[in-house]
Amino acid sequence: MLLLVLSVSCKEQTSTSIASSQPKALIDKNDIDRVEPPNWWTGFKNDSLQLLVHHQNIGSYQPSIEYPGVTIAHVSKAEKSNNYLFIDVIISNSTKAGTFNIIFKNDNNEELVTTYELKAREKSAEDFVGFNSSDAIYLITPDRFANANPNNDTFDNLNEKHIDRTNDYARHGGDLQGITEHVNYIKDLGFTAVWPCPVLTNDMHHASYHGYAITDYYQVDPRFGTTEDYRKLADELRKNNMKLIMDQVANHCGLEHWWMKDLPFSDWVNYQAHYEANKATWSNEIVKRSSHRRTVNQDNYASKIDKQEMSDGWFVQAMPDLNQRNPFMAKYLIQNSIWWIETLGLGGIRQDTYPYPDKDFMSDWAGAIMAEYPNFNIVGEEWSSNPLLIGYWQDGHQNADGYDSNLRSTMDFAMQEKIVSGLKNEETWGTGLKEIYTALANDFHYTRPEDILVFPDNHDMSRIFTQLQGDITNTKMALSYLAVLPRTFQMYYGTEILMNDFDKPGDHGLIRTDFPGGWEGDAVNAFTGDNLEETKKDMQSYVSKLMNFRKNSKAIHNGKTMHFAPENNTYVLARFNDDETVVHILNKNEDTFNLNTNRFEELGLTGKTLKNVFTGETVIWKDSIVLKEKGAIVLTTKLK
Amino acid sequence: MLLLVLSVSCKEQTSTSIASSQPKALIDKNDIDRVEPPNWWTGFKNDSLQLLVHHQNIGSYQPSIEYPGVTIAHVSKAEKSNNYLFIDVIISNSTKAGTFNIIFKNDNNEELVTTYELKAREKSAEDFVGFNSSDAIYLITPDRFANANPNNDTFDNLNEKHIDRTNDYARHGGDLQGITEHVNYIKDLGFTAVWPCPVLTNDMHHASYHGYAITDYYQVDPRFGTTEDYRKLADELRKNNMKLIMDQVANHCGLEHWWMKDLPFSDWVNYQAHYEANKATWSNEIVKRSSHRRTVNQDNYASKIDKQEMSDGWFVQAMPDLNQRNPFMAKYLIQNSIWWIETLGLGGIRQDTYPYPDKDFMSDWAGAIMAEYPNFNIVGEEWSSNPLLIGYWQDGHQNADGYDSNLRSTMDFAMQEKIVSGLKNEETWGTGLKEIYTALANDFHYTRPEDILVFPDNHDMSRIFTQLQGDITNTKMALSYLAVLPRTFQMYYGTEILMNDFDKPGDHGLIRTDFPGGWEGDAVNAFTGDNLEETKKDMQSYVSKLMNFRKNSKAIHNGKTMHFAPENNTYVLARFNDDETVVHILNKNEDTFNLNTNRFEELGLTGKTLKNVFTGETVIWKDSIVLKEKGAIVLTTKLK
Repeated sequence: MLLLVLSVSCKEQTSTSIASSQPKALIDKNDIDRVEPPNWWTGFKNDSLQLLVHHQNIGSYQPSIEYPGVTIAHVSKAEKSNNYLFIDVIISNSTKAGTFNIIFKNDNNEELVTTYELKAREKSAEDFVGFNSSDAIYLITPDRFANANPNNDTFDNLNEKHIDRTNDYARHGGDLQGITEHVNYIKDLGFTAVWPCPVLTNDMHHASYHGYAITDYYQVDPRFGTTEDYRKLADELRKNNMKLIMDQVANHCGLEHWWMKDLPFSDWVNYQAHYEANKATWSNEIVKRSSHRRTVNQDNYASKIDKQEMSDGWFVQAMPDLNQRNPFMAKYLIQNSIWWIETLGLGGIRQDTYPYPDKDFMSDWAGAIMAEYPNFNIVGEEWSSNPLLIGYWQDGHQNADGYDSNLRSTMDFAMQEKIVSGLKNEETWGTGLKEIYTALANDFHYTRPEDILVFPDNHDMSRIFTQLQGDITNTKMALSYLAVLPRTFQMYYGTEILMNDFDKPGDHGLIRTDFPGGWEGDAVNAFTGDNLEETKKDMQSYVSKLMNFRKNSKAIHNGKTMHFAPENNTYVLARFNDDETVVHILNKNEDTFNLNTNRFEELGLTGKTLKNVFTGETVIWKDSIVLKEKGAIVLTTKLK
Repeated sequence: MLLLVLSVSCKEQTSTSIASSQPKALIDKNDIDRVEPPNWWTGFKNDSLQLLVHHQNIGSYQPSIEYPGVTIAHVSKAEKSNNYLFIDVIISNSTKAGTFNIIFKNDNNEELVTTYELKAREKSAEDFVGFNSSDAIYLITPDRFANANPNNDTFDNLNEKHIDRTNDYARHGGDLQGITEHVNYIKDLGFTAVWPCPVLTNDMHHASYHGYAITDYYQVDPRFGTTEDYRKLADELRKNNMKLIMDQVANHCGLEHWWMKDLPFSDWVNYQAHYEANKATWSNEIVKRSSHRRTVNQDNYASKIDKQEMSDGWFVQAMPDLNQRNPFMAKYLIQNSIWWIETLGLGGIRQDTYPYPDKDFMSDWAGAIMAEYPNFNIVGEEWSSNPLLIGYWQDGHQNADGYDSNLRSTMDFAMQEKIVSGLKNEETWGTGLKEIYTALANDFHYTRPEDILVFPDNHDMSRIFTQLQGDITNTKMALSYLAVLPRTFQMYYGTEILMNDFDKPGDHGLIRTDFPGGWEGDAVNAFTGDNLEETKKDMQSYVSKLMNFRKNSKAIHNGKTMHFAPENNTYVLARFNDDETVVHILNKNEDTFNLNTNRFEELGLTGKTLKNVFTGETVIWKDSIVLKEKGAIVLTTKLK
């Protein structure tokens, strides 16, 4: 990190003695191994910043800063390692962007110097607009989408040294540039936001491709590219009015994280003593794994031991569980999130394994972000089909224990389950379409259903086409129903071309199959359609029509919802506002069925002309609607 | 109804001119077919009373009352029948108990006279204490429990004329006296409250035994006895510190209800026009039955038609759906409930099919009762395994739509389901005991879990012994777990002697089998134990020990709850207060298992002596507890 010596103007003077002095001339040196965050910004509501400094014996040094508006409020040593200093800095309102030195001196008058930059913010806090119910999110596993830059596939200084596309758990070479170069494809499909799985360095020995074992919170994994590549993706999306959502992980890091070799505190990770006593022979048998009994977060009867075993246990053996109750860890994670939001101009965060970290911390974390970015959005992953838990985590929910997550969005695993079982199961009094209808009725429990993320599938579950046992019609029905719900919609890359995991259902490596055409020489190219099977092309076209319709339908984004209890193997749901009514029909009748419209009179559609979103045909709403075959029908009163 | 001529004193004078006059001498006549309620009381908070008068051409008459403190505020005719009058009466605070005439005159100066009594209340409003978590409720189908009076088995003037114990759907002859004579049996079993299914007249042609098709809301079915017999049961229970819970039905009456032959208004029952147009050929095919889509009560997206089809549809063909939006019907039902509470000194009401009537009415109904009896309790039946609905109906729940049911107690069909599946299912990561543990964790959603009714079975579902496939150990485990939960406990009669419906699982007639010994000449007598199989005696003894322990355990009634995630096929739950800790262990290990107690350290039991509730043996809580065989263990620190 080489910085130019800048003369920083200082028209405004702050009241403190240090800040009021003229800045010293910048020394062009960088003696310190690691200062994090690597830069910061002026103009945040929160005027405090805590720098983590990591360097041999830095604990024996005293830091000083001379820069107008910037004061050191407190310096903390780390109890377990002398190679850390935590510097609490106050950045007053009047501070100007610029670069300054941090000078470290020890008792022997030895001096270490580093430069530090406070940047000016590129846009106002309000302009960081998070994803919302007008968005459809395309979820990507970056290693498996497109390898635009074969030069960054392997690095000698990283632990996993090879790529091997024949191995589902090895790196395959996909990268950020691969996503950037296909933003047009994603846009044409009708999606408005992209959520790539984590792209920060995962310098693990095995199975590092998925990204959830972060070993450096401030570095893009070189195999995915650079921070600059990440910015280019963000810029390309922004140019297309699309949003970039970052997948972050506050619960755990990767076992090869740099700090695991020099832990600052004895409580930096949970069950740390146990880890340190056993790390030589560390294995799946030894690790104290999370109990995964996630209900302890809400359960009034949960024992302390169950809470601890759930929250403090390691997610898996290769992922040390971070202790967010350590205040330095807490600040580190909050600042890291803000650093990436500001660096990339993010349109949202997806937070992994939401119920596993300390829940009070998670509320503080989300609260700190939302305080800085009032229009932002964060979605937390709680894999639960229990609406009580889904509702609990959404901000504004009246929880009896007073907990407010500060989290705008949660995930609707409940609906995901029901769309599958409802389509697969036979129509009886309580099964089939009624399961879907009844599941949606639970929305009354949610503070804002439209801010909840719904999805046919994601990177951790069988592809929807596999879940629906290879039934294309059912797959289309699932997609279209979920797309018109009062929800924010998300789909996993490749679902539009019927990607599946039939060979090993549920196998993570297989679910995350390479997108055809993402690699030079691929026999099939799904981006261009070359050699793509007709059934897959058809589904691609279906998704594109559905999503492009959704993109422009305010009735779907913010309209009211009305549905009718399923009868005769059909289920009618409507979304409407003053300008538009969208009617969605799930029809399980294989043969032609005349749907009597009397029951739907209150929709006020009689005599109106509606357009079929998929065929473009128009129909006048009369006594009955002819349903020719099993499938989903989407009709809109907006003819153009 | 012949009343003595009484001279009523009138020391206090009210301000109204009518009330301030001296009462006229009482005329000993009763010209009117029906005045309901048949009497009332002084001293209610609500000073208004609406009398339904039914008599040939009574609509052409004007009523008058001369009694100190009593004024007629309004008289309403019925729009559809001239045989009704509704008289709104105000009973001022100062009104004394007594009897007076209501005199009806028409334009031809013809006069009809009836006497009406205002009774003094026997106890204060606060002394009507409803069932609560200290109670265990014994549910009885009166026709099937004990036939103490064979003289009231059949009546020539009733539609169903025979008893036939070989027919599951016929009357069998059980009666109120049969319950009264066996209160000691129920008490010895450890139960503290009795809920008989409805005993009001069901003058139906078929299957009238169950009681849910009421044809007269103010009359005890003669085959069950008289109002006096009902009072005797209440008194006998009161003498034994037990409570009587009345099963009431506000949603529907029986098709043979007297008013169905002379409906007062064109909206007295729902779909009335449809009924009247078709009643000659009335059948299951013609009736507009409820859709039974009960989620419409909460669903923000429910269409009007779905709400109507659910709420207004008839429960079954033989049960007209009462229209509680008709204000006269609403008052009729509220007053009827209060009349029975006051007449019997009830300890609670169980309201049938709670989500089916107009829900605003149900809130008014419960609110009116709770306003008069602040310590009372009502439990509403919503058959749902969805905690969202169970929670919604309980008063004090923060419902987003602002609805407050005024209902203290709801029913825990969710837990009932989970205790069965959890015991039956194999122990895997997510099934078996974990299902039960996870279900209880949902309690955080409930305003007051202890006021929710939990039960192994009831009169509408397979016997628990049948649900658990004839497994006695599982049946014991289910009973003991449910009995120690923070809940109000309820069990169906005969479950203590392993009554079952194996022959036709789920068949209502069979579920409601005769209690052996309830009929003279029964070969087996479960009241005395004569000829009762040893396994049944053993279960009877088990239930008795369990319930008698529960009866005296304040830790169970009001204590705190802590439980531990199941491990090693065992699930530990504790209830505790300052004086007592109850430890409940569900153990699925068939062979001897040493349960390590380290995980339970926070219970603070180390070194303490605990008594096994079933065996009476004591054990010192050390490093491990030996579990000899599969089953439930209940330990208490209260040794005496």
